[in-house]
Amino acid sequence: MDRVGSTLGVAMVGCGTVGGAVARLLLRDQDILKARLSPVLELRHIVDVNFDHARQLGLDERLFRTNLDEALRDPAVGAVVELIGGTTVARSVIERALSAGKCVVTANKALLAHHGVELYALARRNGCCISFEASCAGGIPIIRALCDGLIANRIDAIYGIVNGTCNSILTDMTHHGQSYADALAAAQRDGLAEADPTLDVSGMDSAHKLAIMASLAFGARIRLEAIPVSGIDTLQLRDISYGQELGYVVKLLAIAQRRETGLSLRVRPVFITKEHPLAWVSGPFNAVSVYGHATGHTMYYGRGAGGMPTASAVVADLSAVAMGTAQRAFAQLGIWPDLSGQANQLAIDEVRSRYYIRVMAEDRPGVLAQVATILGRHGISISSVLQHEAINGAASTTGVPVVITTHRSQEGNVRTALGDVDAMEAIKAASVCIGIVDEHPEQL
Amino acid sequence: MDRVGSTLGVAMVGCGTVGGAVARLLLRDQDILKARLSPVLELRHIVDVNFDHARQLGLDERLFRTNLDEALRDPAVGAVVELIGGTTVARSVIERALSAGKCVVTANKALLAHHGVELYALARRNGCCISFEASCAGGIPIIRALCDGLIANRIDAIYGIVNGTCNSILTDMTHHGQSYADALAAAQRDGLAEADPTLDVSGMDSAHKLAIMASLAFGARIRLEAIPVSGIDTLQLRDISYGQELGYVVKLLAIAQRRETGLSLRVRPVFITKEHPLAWVSGPFNAVSVYGHATGHTMYYGRGAGGMPTASAVVADLSAVAMGTAQRAFAQLGIWPDLSGQANQLAIDEVRSRYYIRVMAEDRPGVLAQVATILGRHGISISSVLQHEAINGAASTTGVPVVITTHRSQEGNVRTALGDVDAMEAIKAASVCIGIVDEHPEQL
Repeated sequence: MDRVGSTLGVAMVGCGTVGGAVARLLLRDQDILKARLSPVLELRHIVDVNFDHARQLGLDERLFRTNLDEALRDPAVGAVVELIGGTTVARSVIERALSAGKCVVTANKALLAHHGVELYALARRNGCCISFEASCAGGIPIIRALCDGLIANRIDAIYGIVNGTCNSILTDMTHHGQSYADALAAAQRDGLAEADPTLDVSGMDSAHKLAIMASLAFGARIRLEAIPVSGIDTLQLRDISYGQELGYVVKLLAIAQRRETGLSLRVRPVFITKEHPLAWVSGPFNAVSVYGHATGHTMYYGRGAGGMPTASAVVADLSAVAMGTAQRAFAQLGIWPDLSGQANQLAIDEVRSRYYIRVMAEDRPGVLAQVATILGRHGISISSVLQHEAINGAASTTGVPVVITTHRSQEGNVRTALGDVDAMEAIKAASVCIGIVDEHPEQL
Repeated sequence: MDRVGSTLGVAMVGCGTVGGAVARLLLRDQDILKARLSPVLELRHIVDVNFDHARQLGLDERLFRTNLDEALRDPAVGAVVELIGGTTVARSVIERALSAGKCVVTANKALLAHHGVELYALARRNGCCISFEASCAGGIPIIRALCDGLIANRIDAIYGIVNGTCNSILTDMTHHGQSYADALAAAQRDGLAEADPTLDVSGMDSAHKLAIMASLAFGARIRLEAIPVSGIDTLQLRDISYGQELGYVVKLLAIAQRRETGLSLRVRPVFITKEHPLAWVSGPFNAVSVYGHATGHTMYYGRGAGGMPTASAVVADLSAVAMGTAQRAFAQLGIWPDLSGQANQLAIDEVRSRYYIRVMAEDRPGVLAQVATILGRHGISISSVLQHEAINGAASTTGVPVVITTHRSQEGNVRTALGDVDAMEAIKAASVCIGIVDEHPEQL
């Protein structure tokens, strides 16, 4: 399996934004790489159905192929780069490449989150490997940190800001007081959000990345469907403002925590204190905090998307295949999901956290006491209450916002309690509940 | 050179704080590693002159050796870990290990900064390798980022907070208004500073790490002696306060910038804006910002010292030796200093930066005009002036502080101009000059 020679032939499938940037690194910038790496990466085939973008970039037409088989039949090709995305055609491309004995490099988080186990196993049967640094957090070498730099650690937790679209929107809402709709429209104008932003703003893209990172960190198979996911599309500006008053910043976090009974995974907008290292990560930047039993807190920051940052990760993977280090790590590490057992993923109700709760209460005596009584009955202890003076009459129908923060509570209890609260006649709208994530304790 | 088997025998030389933590990871925590890595790391020899600490840790006395040769003669030993520090005995240990064909893992930044080229060459002649993740920034996998994750990049700049002692002292001075002497005493009490703190506070330890990181980032030999180094021991609290008023935080930065004419390297306390990602790195934490032509800004954060974080890096290196990936990278990357040409290190006078200048001026008409005239004559343009009202009479002999920030200027001109300023009769004390580091522009 260590077919290491002086040249690694590369076939690239898909030549969009990332593909174009990979071609740039392998062709226009090849002198940079040649000075740093002795095996040469030779781009031999660009496979696509449409070469408009490739032509715009001035790429050599002699590399263009519409048929993958031609590339796979080339014995000089040692690695296939899959950059078409999605879980159908991309899956078949990767399966054909692995079956032909080619190592695969991919940026496809959705595919790996859904079908990683089968694909890793197929790679192993064919004596090759799959590398996917580009699948999580763009140019940040977070997969390498989990598989290599932190290998001596029992990983206890991961907290990641891994979707630049969401982080841009939340940054605009927080810093410029924009509504979600306006911030989304701005992100779409700036090319930071897709025309259909669902995959990003729903939190699903973050869940894909969380599943991949957690599987390696904890050496366990993760069921994507069992990760509770909520997105940023229902966030209200007023909650961001109240949070700021309390010293918090809202972030869409992908969270994985090792608990005694299993793994607690979730994706959701949460409040973190302004002092937390993730709080200042703004705009399209990503960052992932990893807590190891030996290292304590380490954090990795950078651009989580975009052609060149993602291409940097793709070419790093190609370099590792060319050196034979990717193959060795794939063969000798025990953390790959096809070698791992199934994780025990804890239900969302078992999460223990502090919470921000906003209820819309009728402005009359006794309502707050009633809410507090319900919370107390479910074992939820109140940490602070924030209620501004109501402008006379304005709140008669909508209620006035009362913001409560709790001490550490069980999420299931909070959910049940809020059901009871919302059933009160004096509560005028559905309550809002947002988790508060404290700094994870280091175990040093 | 790829002697990869199912077990890697390890000899560890030096069993102090880091050595004890390495032993803990390899012995007490061995199940964590065995679940994550198929080759087994077997600690077979602990070589030292004094086993008091090893005994306190309850380590198996049968591992203790006072003679390195015994360990080197053991054919099952594939790697020697050097943790004694310094540039004399440690050098001989490493040379003997390499000559015996053993791979070396070391945390010794001083030795590599001074003698890395000869040691890498010796390793190469003997078909083995030297790994040194633990030499820079403790548990942060920054060496791996430079050699692996960012390999496709032309690195344009590195800005590092790489000395936890200095960062703790500066954090205390900044947040608690402590004097340098008091903050140092507190750091010594807390075990964050040595009894003789010179190596840390002088900036020399940071220079060692900068030399190592820059050599890999730029693929060039770095002359340690040619790095201008100034420490934090002459920093005055009042400059930290004025800086804060202007929106800056003081940090001891290790800086490396690629310029058209060569490399600009330096270690010194500088001001950075409160928005800079390095500004919030506080206490004993380290962080390194790396700017690549493809990734843009990436940053790596974590504990830069301490037994367990450093041991995490040592064991990551041992794992890479056990998998054979360290040997392959050492053989196939072109960035190692023994394979590289000499860097053209630019003189400090060629640095272009903004500057904070504090002059102690007699409080009478015309003095500021005179200072401004001198600066203008040397091509230095003033960006802002800060002068508080003097308390009557208090400043007659010492002068009043006038704080000036400049636009981008050449350091040599600033130095000459301040010589002229300090020669003025109305200037009552030597002027203070601190560089202001702006966010490095990304080249995406």
